[in-house]
Amino acid sequence: MNNFFEKLEELTRANNSLLCVGLDSDLAHLPKISLLKKNPQVWFNHQVIEATSDLVCAYKINFAFYESLGSEGWENLTLTRKLIPPHIPVIADTKRNDIGNTARHYAKAIFEILHFDATTVNPYLGYDSLEPFFQFRDKGVFVLCLTSNPGASDFQLPDLFLQVAEKCRVWNDKFGNVGLVVGATYPEQMREIRQTFPEGWFLVPGVGAQQGDLETVVRTGLRLTDNRGLIINVSRSIIFASAEADFAQEARATAEKLRQQINSIRGIVV
Amino acid sequence: MNNFFEKLEELTRANNSLLCVGLDSDLAHLPKISLLKKNPQVWFNHQVIEATSDLVCAYKINFAFYESLGSEGWENLTLTRKLIPPHIPVIADTKRNDIGNTARHYAKAIFEILHFDATTVNPYLGYDSLEPFFQFRDKGVFVLCLTSNPGASDFQLPDLFLQVAEKCRVWNDKFGNVGLVVGATYPEQMREIRQTFPEGWFLVPGVGAQQGDLETVVRTGLRLTDNRGLIINVSRSIIFASAEADFAQEARATAEKLRQQINSIRGIVV
Repeated sequence: MNNFFEKLEELTRANNSLLCVGLDSDLAHLPKISLLKKNPQVWFNHQVIEATSDLVCAYKINFAFYESLGSEGWENLTLTRKLIPPHIPVIADTKRNDIGNTARHYAKAIFEILHFDATTVNPYLGYDSLEPFFQFRDKGVFVLCLTSNPGASDFQLPDLFLQVAEKCRVWNDKFGNVGLVVGATYPEQMREIRQTFPEGWFLVPGVGAQQGDLETVVRTGLRLTDNRGLIINVSRSIIFASAEADFAQEARATAEKLRQQINSIRGIVV
Repeated sequence: MNNFFEKLEELTRANNSLLCVGLDSDLAHLPKISLLKKNPQVWFNHQVIEATSDLVCAYKINFAFYESLGSEGWENLTLTRKLIPPHIPVIADTKRNDIGNTARHYAKAIFEILHFDATTVNPYLGYDSLEPFFQFRDKGVFVLCLTSNPGASDFQLPDLFLQVAEKCRVWNDKFGNVGLVVGATYPEQMREIRQTFPEGWFLVPGVGAQQGDLETVVRTGLRLTDNRGLIINVSRSIIFASAEADFAQEARATAEKLRQQINSIRGIVV
């Protein structure tokens, strides 16, 4: 099983889950107990991973929360990646991009140096900026389509997001490793995007702290053929479910509840 | 002199230059002699900086060529930044972006941890993703408008780039710290962008290895009021002007020639 999406599908079955936990482990928000440890960020991640690894279909790591610690943060990123069991796909949420020659270096950093299974990329620079990522056939590439923030309306609406979805559906024909990032906060558009790219995997941020409605998202976004095709990412509401010493336990309880909610909406009895 | 654009203007006068040297110091392309040094990438950068610092208005460092070396590369980025004399503005070419809460962490990494004077950002996610960068009033923020690669035509053309230019002109009213990235390879559009944002500073990649025509770019892009407003970035054709031990000397000679060409087109006698 070499391909990211095969690995992902396998785990959605094994863990009966479309839930992705986002390790947005902002040092300023870690439970106090973490700060007593030698490496608070990595220790915290380790606890969360151990508490949730049988409930997820993937983990997602947003690089911003590590880069803001400088080269030490970059080291924490490397260490955290290594803590995740190899059967669980890990998505590098980098939203990177640049012109071809340079994008190759980003792809190399993410896939070859850090050994992530997938990444998020920004489509603004067009095909030749994305192609160096697509070339890693066994890796997954989630292209930003419609993001969950208010500013999505500045340029993505009313129709750029659909142009992106249409092109990605075509680009996916080559190696089958292209997905989309579709925020949970625009359900009408979620429906259009699903119609445009019926077979695609969508990484969905915006449930939880950002208040996207879970039921609407799952109902409008699911892939019709198999009631999958969505990776519902939740970060802060899971990892910071408690600020006390029981944070890992509470992270597990919240993740468990979300997994069940998602499964009950898609009609899978747990 | 706290503001990035003031610092930049000052140096364009002091060095009589609109030339920016891009330290895209890809380890695979460094002159052989560098590889004998303890830290090839940083040593190479040091030589290039010493050979060109009186000829430039700024340096630009593209993070991709450092990230592809992992946490060691991130350390090289930090060391290279420190090598540049404090009166010279340094632009972090990161093309980063994310939703507000996360973008703040990227801005922190670039401006507070690494102490860069300016950065490039990607506009796809809209205002609330850019605002955390704008909030650093003394720093410069160059928003991708029209990039120099072929894929620019996928989404930026025919009119998205102008929407970005229009919004950035408005956003610049707040703190006066917003510029644009405008590739040298689309001269017609360069003219439209200058009309849209007459007072703006444009960071211009694509001259040199990417074959944008220098004369057309300068003639169509210059700010009418003062024959400035362009930062012409050249990376590979300067830093890799020679693969031999004379690379720094050749970098200087190429930079000198480009500075003069730019000045002669804008009618400044050197």
